[in-house]
Amino acid sequence: MTEGTRASDETLRKLRSVSTATISAVLRKHGYEQMFMEDVAPLRPDLRMAGHAVTLRYIAARPDLDPSGEVDNRTNKQRIAIQSVGQGDVLVIEARGDTRAGTLGNILATRVQQLGGEGIVTDGAYRDTPEIVEIDLPTYSRAQHPNLSASIHFPADVNVPITCGGIAVLPGDIIVGDAEGVIVVPLAIADAVSAESYEQEEREAFILEKVQAGRELQGIYPPNEAALAEFEEWRRARRV
Amino acid sequence: MTEGTRASDETLRKLRSVSTATISAVLRKHGYEQMFMEDVAPLRPDLRMAGHAVTLRYIAARPDLDPSGEVDNRTNKQRIAIQSVGQGDVLVIEARGDTRAGTLGNILATRVQQLGGEGIVTDGAYRDTPEIVEIDLPTYSRAQHPNLSASIHFPADVNVPITCGGIAVLPGDIIVGDAEGVIVVPLAIADAVSAESYEQEEREAFILEKVQAGRELQGIYPPNEAALAEFEEWRRARRV
Amino acid sequence: MTEGTRASDETLRKLRSVSTATISAVLRKHGYEQMFMEDVAPLRPDLRMAGHAVTLRYIAARPDLDPSGEVDNRTNKQRIAIQSVGQGDVLVIEARGDTRAGTLGNILATRVQQLGGEGIVTDGAYRDTPEIVEIDLPTYSRAQHPNLSASIHFPADVNVPITCGGIAVLPGDIIVGDAEGVIVVPLAIADAVSAESYEQEEREAFILEKVQAGRELQGIYPPNEAALAEFEEWRRARRV
Amino acid sequence: MTEGTRASDETLRKLRSVSTATISAVLRKHGYEQMFMEDVAPLRPDLRMAGHAVTLRYIAARPDLDPSGEVDNRTNKQRIAIQSVGQGDVLVIEARGDTRAGTLGNILATRVQQLGGEGIVTDGAYRDTPEIVEIDLPTYSRAQHPNLSASIHFPADVNVPITCGGIAVLPGDIIVGDAEGVIVVPLAIADAVSAESYEQEEREAFILEKVQAGRELQGIYPPNEAALAEFEEWRRARRV
Amino acid sequence: MTEGTRASDETLRKLRSVSTATISAVLRKHGYEQMFMEDVAPLRPDLRMAGHAVTLRYIAARPDLDPSGEVDNRTNKQRIAIQSVGQGDVLVIEARGDTRAGTLGNILATRVQQLGGEGIVTDGAYRDTPEIVEIDLPTYSRAQHPNLSASIHFPADVNVPITCGGIAVLPGDIIVGDAEGVIVVPLAIADAVSAESYEQEEREAFILEKVQAGRELQGIYPPNEAALAEFEEWRRARRV
Amino acid sequence: MTEGTRASDETLRKLRSVSTATISAVLRKHGYEQMFMEDVAPLRPDLRMAGHAVTLRYIAARPDLDPSGEVDNRTNKQRIAIQSVGQGDVLVIEARGDTRAGTLGNILATRVQQLGGEGIVTDGAYRDTPEIVEIDLPTYSRAQHPNLSASIHFPADVNVPITCGGIAVLPGDIIVGDAEGVIVVPLAIADAVSAESYEQEEREAFILEKVQAGRELQGIYPPNEAALAEFEEWRRARRV
Repeated sequence: MTEGTRASDETLRKLRSVSTATISAVLRKHGYEQMFMEDVAPLRPDLRMAGHAVTLRYIAARPDLDPSGEVDNRTNKQRIAIQSVGQGDVLVIEARGDTRAGTLGNILATRVQQLGGEGIVTDGAYRDTPEIVEIDLPTYSRAQHPNLSASIHFPADVNVPITCGGIAVLPGDIIVGDAEGVIVVPLAIADAVSAESYEQEEREAFILEKVQAGRELQGIYPPNEAALAEFEEWRRARRV
Repeated sequence: MTEGTRASDETLRKLRSVSTATISAVLRKHGYEQMFMEDVAPLRPDLRMAGHAVTLRYIAARPDLDPSGEVDNRTNKQRIAIQSVGQGDVLVIEARGDTRAGTLGNILATRVQQLGGEGIVTDGAYRDTPEIVEIDLPTYSRAQHPNLSASIHFPADVNVPITCGGIAVLPGDIIVGDAEGVIVVPLAIADAVSAESYEQEEREAFILEKVQAGRELQGIYPPNEAALAEFEEWRRARRV
Repeated sequence: MTEGTRASDETLRKLRSVSTATISAVLRKHGYEQMFMEDVAPLRPDLRMAGHAVTLRYIAARPDLDPSGEVDNRTNKQRIAIQSVGQGDVLVIEARGDTRAGTLGNILATRVQQLGGEGIVTDGAYRDTPEIVEIDLPTYSRAQHPNLSASIHFPADVNVPITCGGIAVLPGDIIVGDAEGVIVVPLAIADAVSAESYEQEEREAFILEKVQAGRELQGIYPPNEAALAEFEEWRRARRV
Repeated sequence: MTEGTRASDETLRKLRSVSTATISAVLRKHGYEQMFMEDVAPLRPDLRMAGHAVTLRYIAARPDLDPSGEVDNRTNKQRIAIQSVGQGDVLVIEARGDTRAGTLGNILATRVQQLGGEGIVTDGAYRDTPEIVEIDLPTYSRAQHPNLSASIHFPADVNVPITCGGIAVLPGDIIVGDAEGVIVVPLAIADAVSAESYEQEEREAFILEKVQAGRELQGIYPPNEAALAEFEEWRRARRV
Repeated sequence: MTEGTRASDETLRKLRSVSTATISAVLRKHGYEQMFMEDVAPLRPDLRMAGHAVTLRYIAARPDLDPSGEVDNRTNKQRIAIQSVGQGDVLVIEARGDTRAGTLGNILATRVQQLGGEGIVTDGAYRDTPEIVEIDLPTYSRAQHPNLSASIHFPADVNVPITCGGIAVLPGDIIVGDAEGVIVVPLAIADAVSAESYEQEEREAFILEKVQAGRELQGIYPPNEAALAEFEEWRRARRV
Repeated sequence: MTEGTRASDETLRKLRSVSTATISAVLRKHGYEQMFMEDVAPLRPDLRMAGHAVTLRYIAARPDLDPSGEVDNRTNKQRIAIQSVGQGDVLVIEARGDTRAGTLGNILATRVQQLGGEGIVTDGAYRDTPEIVEIDLPTYSRAQHPNLSASIHFPADVNVPITCGGIAVLPGDIIVGDAEGVIVVPLAIADAVSAESYEQEEREAFILEKVQAGRELQGIYPPNEAALAEFEEWRRARRV
C-alpha cells in the first residue's frame, strides 16, 4: 500500500482481476486461515469487486429502539452509513445471518451506486432483489426477502468492527468479490496479497494450459524445477 | 373486492404488477407483520402470479395410509385438489418443509396449467423440476427431488387452512408471486392492498428516478412536503 | 449388464437419456427407497451424466496427517484418485457435507476431463467454481468455497465404499446426473433399471402429450386398460 | 385389540412396560420403517406412557384468524381438544416443529391430568415448563418457550390426521413414550406389536443376563438354536 | 422505577419471583412481542436471576486483531467487561450463536460472582462448564465447549447495544432468568412489568388451585366475573 | 509415551484427571487448533474416560449391502469392532452425524464393558439409551434413537482413520472424555500433553483459590512474576 489508509489503484485493480480462490490461498500463507464469508452469494456473478469496507452494524429490532418509525436521514445509522460511501467503497452490513427482512432495497442500492460505491455485501437479505440485480453494481447477500428492515433489524453503528458471514471486518479492510463469493483482505497486507495473487494466477494459467493440452499432473502440478523454468520462459514470451 | 369470494380482475392485475416488497410494506400497515413465505423460491423468476388459493395438505406418509399404492383420481386428495383448480387459482401445498420427495411432477403441473391455473406453490420439492421449468406457469418450491411423493407425503385434506413456508393460508386467499418469492394477501383486504401497493410503487418510481439522477436522499427518501408536491406534478404529467 | 464389472454402452446411453425422477421410481420398485443424493446440485444443468463411480474419501484434516503440506502426486490420495479416472468414470468425493473448503479446483477438474472422465460429484464444495462451470463436464456439489482442500479435508482412501449426499456409493456403481441432481444405481441392476426407465419414460411421454392436449387425468394418469392399448398403438406408430 | 376402537388394558400395560427401542424393531417387522418422533424429548424420563391419540393441529398465526384475542372455551380448538381428553388419552399437538412459543402451559397441562389424560406430546414447545415438570404426567416436547401460543400458533382442527415430529398420527393411534422418546403404534396392530414386543424383551433380558455374566456374543447375540433352547428353559424357570 | 438508571430492590425481587412465561405475557401487553432469548438454556435451573445488563460484544477472531495473544487486564475488552460488573449486574455476552469455543471459563465466572454479579448469559458456549455449574451463580448459554475464546471470538466492545439469543439488549436493561430461560425487560418499563407480572401470578395461582381441585376450564380460565370476584376474596383471605 | 503404541498408565491417569478444557488449551500450543468433537455429549457426566481409539466406520445403508439382514458375529464389521475392544480401549464410531437410528444398544454396550472397554463414542445416536445410562461406562453421543442401526447405517470398516464429531480419529489415538465432551489427543504427543495439562491445572487451581478469596484479576490471571513465585511456593507447600 503506497500510503495512508487507502490501497493504491494498482492494488485494487489486481485484486479485482484475480479469483477469491487464489486470494484465499495467498492469505493462508500470511497466517489467515479463513477470510471467506460463509453463505454470502453474488447476485451478479458477472461482476467483480474490490474496495474499502464501510461497515454498518444492525442489532435485533425491538419496539423502544425506534418508537417513531420515521426515518431521519440525519440520525438513522443506516442512512448515515450509506451517505458515507465514497468512490471505491464497499458497504458491508452485519445482519447476524438473519434473513427475515431485507437490509436495504432498490432505492438505497441505487444511491450507493450514484455515490461511486464499489459494491454492497450483507449476511442478511436484500428487498427488491429483482430490481437490485438490474443495477450494474456487485451485490452479495445470503437471501432475498421483501420485508422492511425495520421489522427485524435496527441500525446501531457505523464504521465499527463487525462480523459478516462469520468473518471479522474492520472499516477500511479490502473487500474482494467474484462469482465464488466475498473475501476480506486486511488493509495492512493488501499490497502483498495483491502482488502475490497476481503472480500465482500467472503460474496457474501456465499449468492449466499444459493440463488442457493433455499433460499429466506429475511434474507440472505442483511444478518441479523443470516446469518452473518452462514457466519463466512462457511468461517472458507472453509479456513481449 | 367488488363482490363474492373472488377478487376483481383489476385487483389481481394490479397485484401482479407490483412487487412482493411493496405488498409486504402495505400489509404491515394493515397489521400483518409477516406474510412472505420463508424458503420458497421461484423456478421461473421471469413470471408473475396473483390468484386464489386452492390448498392441499400433506401429512407424513406411513404404510397403512395408502396400502394399495394405487392412485385413484376420484379418491386421492392430491388428484382432487388438482382437479379442483380453476381459472385464476393457485395450488398451494403444505409439505411441512420436507423436501425428501417431490410433491408433484411434470404431468400434474401440466394439468394445472391446462385447467387455467395461475401457478403452484409448495414448501416442499417438485420432481421433474427440469421439465416443470419449461412450462409457462409460475411455480415456487423449496427444493427439487426426484422421489415420488408417496414415499414421504400422504395427501390428507383439500381446501382447509394450511401453513406453507411458515405462513397461514386460507382457501381463497390471494397468493402473489414475483422473482423475490411468494406473499399471502388475505381476501378481505385484497382490494385495499392492491390499490395502496399500486400507489406506493408510483411514488417509489418517482423517488428512484430522482436518485438515479443523482439527487441525495435528504428530502426525497422519505419525501418531505416539497418532494410530495413535486411527485404529484410528476404523476400528473406522466398520466397525460 | 452384459458382462464383467462395466455397464454396456447401451445401458449408460439409456440412463443418460432418462430423468433421475424416472430412475428414482424404478429403483423404488427394486427395493431401493432412496438413492438420490441430498443437497448435491448441478453446476451445469444443461449436461447429463452416467458413468462408473471412482470413489475418494476425505476425513477431517489435522496437523499430523499431512505435516509437510507438500502434495506428491504419487502418494497423495486425492491425486491417485484423479489419476485413476478413466473413460466413462465419475469421480465421487465424500466430504461429509462439510463445505468450508473446496474439494478440488479448476486444474484437477480439467485433468479429469482430459482423462475421459464422465463427471465429478462431491457433497462438499469446489474451489474455482466460476472456472469449473466453463469446462464442458457435468459437475455436482453442495456449495462453492475458495479455500484449499487441505485446510479442512485430508484424502484418506481411494475406491472404498463411501457415503456421498447421504447415499452409500460403492466403487463401480453407476452414477447418473441430470438437472435435478445425482442418483446412484447399483451396478448389478443397472441393465434392468436402464431398460425399465426407458420404457417408463415412453409411457410418460405419451401421457404428457395427452394431458398437454387437454385430456383430463381420469383414465390416463394412471392409465387404464384402454389408455394402455392406445399407448401401444402410439408407440408402434412412433417407432416406424 | 379385543374390540372397538380402544386397545385393551393388557395391550396398553405391556406397551407401557417395553421400550420404544423394542417397539421400533417390532414395527419394522410389520413394515413400518420409522414411527419414532424426531426431536421430541421427555420432560419426565422417569415416567412411561401408552394411550390413545387425541390430536390438535395448529397452523401459523395471523391477525385475521383470531381478531379478538379472547379465548372462548366453547369455540377455541385448543380448549376443545383439551376438554375432549378422557381416561387413557394422549394429547398430541402438531406445531410444525416451530418452538417460538409454547403450545400450552401449566394450567392446561394440569387440566389434562385432572381429566385422566395419559400424557401430552408436542413437536413445538411448552410454556411454564418448570411447573409442568412438577406434574406427575408424561410430557414430551421439542423445546421450552415462555411466549403465549397465540403469538405463533392458531388452533385449526381437533382429531384430524396430523404430522408430529415427522410422523403421521391418526386419532386413536397408540402413542407410547419412555425416556428415549415417543413412538406411534397404529391401532390396528397394537395387540400384535404389544405381544411381540413383550416377547422380544424377555429374550433380550435373557441375552443381557448372559452378556453381563461375561458370555461372548457368538452364539448368543443373535442366539443360535442352543441358545434359544437355553432361553426357553430360562423363561420357564423364571415364570414359575 | 423509583429513580436514576437502576431498578428498585422491590422491582428486582418481584421479577426474580415470577416466571419468564408470565413476564413474556405482560411484555406482550406493552407491545414487546418477543423478548425471550432463543437457544439460551440455564446451567442451573434451580436458581433465579434478575439484574442489570453489562454487555460484552465479541466479533469473529482473526490473526491481526490480537497479534500478541497476551491478555492484558487493562486493555482486553473481555476483562474490562468482567471487571465492570457490580452488585446486581448480569454480564450478557453476544457471541453470534457461535459455539465453537467458550466465551469464558471457570476462573472468570468465579470473579463475576466475587464482584456481586447476579449472573452471566451468553448465546455462545462456556468452557469449564462442569466447574461453572458448581458455582452458585445463575448462568445461561447455548452450549459447552472447551476451546479458548481467542480461537473464535475477539472482544470488541463493552456496554454497547448488542443482540443476544436474537434479542436486542441495551446496557442497563433488566435481564431475568428462570428454569425456562432468559427474558429481557427494558429498564423504562421494569416497574410496571414487575408489578403486573406479580399480580398475574397471583391470579394464576388461584386458577391453578381450582383446576387442581378438579374445576373445569369454563368460567375459570379465562375467569368470568364470578371467578374474578371469587379470586378477590381468595386473595384477601390469603393476605391476612 | 514410554514405548510401543500404547500410552503409559500414568499418561492415561493424568489425562483422566484433567479437564478437556485444559487439554484443548495445551493441544493448541502443539499446533492442534481444534480437536474437540462437535455435538457429542456425555450420557454420564459423572464419569471420566481416557483410552485408545478402536474405530468403526459406518456408511449409509442400502438394500444390497446387507441382503440377508442376518448379523454374523464373524463377518459383521460392527461386531468385529466390538469384539476387538480390549482393556483400556475406547470404541469410536463414525455415523456421519446421522441420528435417525441407534449405532448400537444396551447389549453391545454391556459387552464393551465386559471386555474392559474404557468407553464408547459416536457422532450418531444410541438405542436403549435409558439402559445404557445405567451401565457404569463413559458413553458419548449426539442423540438417542430407538431404531435399529441397520435401517440407516452399514458397518464398512474397522480400525481405519475416521471423522467423528468433525475430528479426524486414527486408531490408537487417545480419546479423553469428561462432562464437557470428548477430545482427541494424537498418540505421538500424549505424554507431553498429559504432563503439560497436569501442570496447567495445578496453576489454575492456585489462581482459582486466589480469585475465590476475592483477589482481583490484575496480576494473578494471567499471573505476573510475583504471582508465579507465589504459585511455586504454594505448590511446594501443597506437595509436602
